[in-house]
Amino acid sequence: MPEVTTAADGSQDALVVRVAAGGSIGWGECEASPLVSIAAFVTPMSHGACRPVSASVLGRSLTSPDDIRAMAADVAYNSMDLLQAAHTWSGIEMALWDLLGKVRGEPAWKLLGYQKAWPKLPYASVLFGGTPEETLNRARAIRAQGFRAAKFGWAPFGASLEGDIAQLEAARAGLGVDGVLLVDAGQVFGEDVAAAAARLKAMERFEVTWFEEPFRGDALNAYKALSQKTDKVGIAGGEAAHTSQMAKHLIDFGGVRYIQIDCGRIGGLGPAKAVADHAAASGVTYVNHTFTSNLALSASLQPYAGLKEHKICEYPTELRSLARELTLNRITPDAEGLIHVPDAPGLGIEINPDALAKYRVEVEIRVQGRTLFASPCPQQEEKK
Amino acid sequence: MPEVTTAADGSQDALVVRVAAGGSIGWGECEASPLVSIAAFVTPMSHGACRPVSASVLGRSLTSPDDIRAMAADVAYNSMDLLQAAHTWSGIEMALWDLLGKVRGEPAWKLLGYQKAWPKLPYASVLFGGTPEETLNRARAIRAQGFRAAKFGWAPFGASLEGDIAQLEAARAGLGVDGVLLVDAGQVFGEDVAAAAARLKAMERFEVTWFEEPFRGDALNAYKALSQKTDKVGIAGGEAAHTSQMAKHLIDFGGVRYIQIDCGRIGGLGPAKAVADHAAASGVTYVNHTFTSNLALSASLQPYAGLKEHKICEYPTELRSLARELTLNRITPDAEGLIHVPDAPGLGIEINPDALAKYRVEVEIRVQGRTLFASPCPQQEEKK
Repeated sequence: MPEVTTAADGSQDALVVRVAAGGSIGWGECEASPLVSIAAFVTPMSHGACRPVSASVLGRSLTSPDDIRAMAADVAYNSMDLLQAAHTWSGIEMALWDLLGKVRGEPAWKLLGYQKAWPKLPYASVLFGGTPEETLNRARAIRAQGFRAAKFGWAPFGASLEGDIAQLEAARAGLGVDGVLLVDAGQVFGEDVAAAAARLKAMERFEVTWFEEPFRGDALNAYKALSQKTDKVGIAGGEAAHTSQMAKHLIDFGGVRYIQIDCGRIGGLGPAKAVADHAAASGVTYVNHTFTSNLALSASLQPYAGLKEHKICEYPTELRSLARELTLNRITPDAEGLIHVPDAPGLGIEINPDALAKYRVEVEIRVQGRTLFASPCPQQEEKK
Repeated sequence: MPEVTTAADGSQDALVVRVAAGGSIGWGECEASPLVSIAAFVTPMSHGACRPVSASVLGRSLTSPDDIRAMAADVAYNSMDLLQAAHTWSGIEMALWDLLGKVRGEPAWKLLGYQKAWPKLPYASVLFGGTPEETLNRARAIRAQGFRAAKFGWAPFGASLEGDIAQLEAARAGLGVDGVLLVDAGQVFGEDVAAAAARLKAMERFEVTWFEEPFRGDALNAYKALSQKTDKVGIAGGEAAHTSQMAKHLIDFGGVRYIQIDCGRIGGLGPAKAVADHAAASGVTYVNHTFTSNLALSASLQPYAGLKEHKICEYPTELRSLARELTLNRITPDAEGLIHVPDAPGLGIEINPDALAKYRVEVEIRVQGRTLFASPCPQQEEKK
């Protein structure tokens, strides 16, 4: 966005990936710091375990899902010491499924092995209001829009126990007794189990379905300790996972009841599907994590499209204009308030070239006088 | 280095960090992709959880170790969605301990809480030869240099069971019966426990002390499974950890007997010390991971300088000229073959300004026409 605020609103940036092969084009989106992720693609190799992501991608052949998995393994091994590689690769991996699906005329979820895509119950995903009153109004508006579930997140939640209770009360009042209420703490408690546990009583009282990211993404012991303190509130987490292993550990060792995966960080659809399989086998509910465009939303739904019982899904309703305008078509709730994964080739989302031009940030990276990356102008894009 | 090969030799690059405050200067080194880590420092904020590392560092006051810990917490929280931040911050954190130690006239290990620094037994850390003969000669040369321990790593290890056995036999023959033999598989087995376990018999026969990084850094279950298959060979790992939690999980859930920490990746000396404390309490041996300059070597020794029983330490002996020339003083074995953590303010290592000039890579990063980073010329450095 031309103006960026300190709000934890991930729809303020977008790093869109376009892959081209054999006359077809696929699109993906990294949920990541754009400049840093670009640098991870173009950086010169500095040693054998520190190769750019591009080295494992450009010029490769793509004829089957196994080709995507082979590239993923190469990125992990050849870019072992390049931490950002996972975020960069995520958008590329997504774009490769989109491309392969378009070539085959099949939706990505079919390529992932599902026979049928089940409808999902979207929860409106918004930030807490600055005051309980704002949160109350936000919750009422969400119900008025027809949503049956809503998630409130981040600051001011965590600032004070009293304030948090007032926020929870307001959210429940606004949603009504039959609304599904979810809370996202945005890692505010670090590893402080006692501070997070102090909120459980109020959460049980206001019937909060899940308590998301109370802690840092890797605080397995804290997740475990908190999950053992309540039967009524499910602990949720996982969006920070940048490998499928990290997410599986949150299930196996952290005791979460909801595992939330961002395909734009975990390495794309393949590792996300592996987590979905593990969640289903472990009695844990898989949920997408999405706070950006409808391209990312479609991608995030594919890995669990075929899991009928894993019904709830994140659905951002207050996207900034960048994320809204990025796609020509959108995924919207039907008359029953459910959303449907596109039954169209690839991810089934069309990118808006005007938005790419309108919001493009000019970036140039030069090393030893050589330009490694420069934002393409629209004309150049057309020619490619 | 002017020429970079695909060898897993991390001394081919260097990202040196200089921090200045109150008239003093501190130095650190990231074990990371240099360009990407620079981008993580300078990138514009793209949303509240995606702020550059610089936002949590520049202009902060530094009067005590707690100030460093406070900055670390801010980086983790404010750069939550910027994966590379941990690698960038690692070099800065190191430099801050160096600076604080210089101001106080105390070595970093004292600031970390140790009263005394114990000598360490260095193992020569080299790559396997391309053939068993080369490895044999390398091992003999290492013994001839006076080293009592050696580690051989990476390709061609893992390519074939027969070849690996021949390599192990050669390494043992070259080191002699009383040499400490260590093996580093460089993650070559991915998560394939059976493939790694197939090497255990030969490792036991040739009395390998530890089997390092058989798997991806986050494959906790694979580590656990392998560690349960042998009492004689200790499983080692941890260098990939970019948070102290990840390393602790390798101990708690992965069953490693040696935890190897790279201060240039884990977030610097503070989180490394937290891992050392946890290792000591868990009966696991802490070991440094270092394959770059003596600045990084000194930093890597500080977090366990005071742990007398954790004696063995990684000591790269075949550094490329960049890493060798980067420091004016070096840490070298004494007459008994032991090395000593510098008993000097900070990290006790002097940087060679000529090497900084000689090996500098010109980098320029521009966003929307504004230069966010340009390699400083030596004159500019002098002025600062």
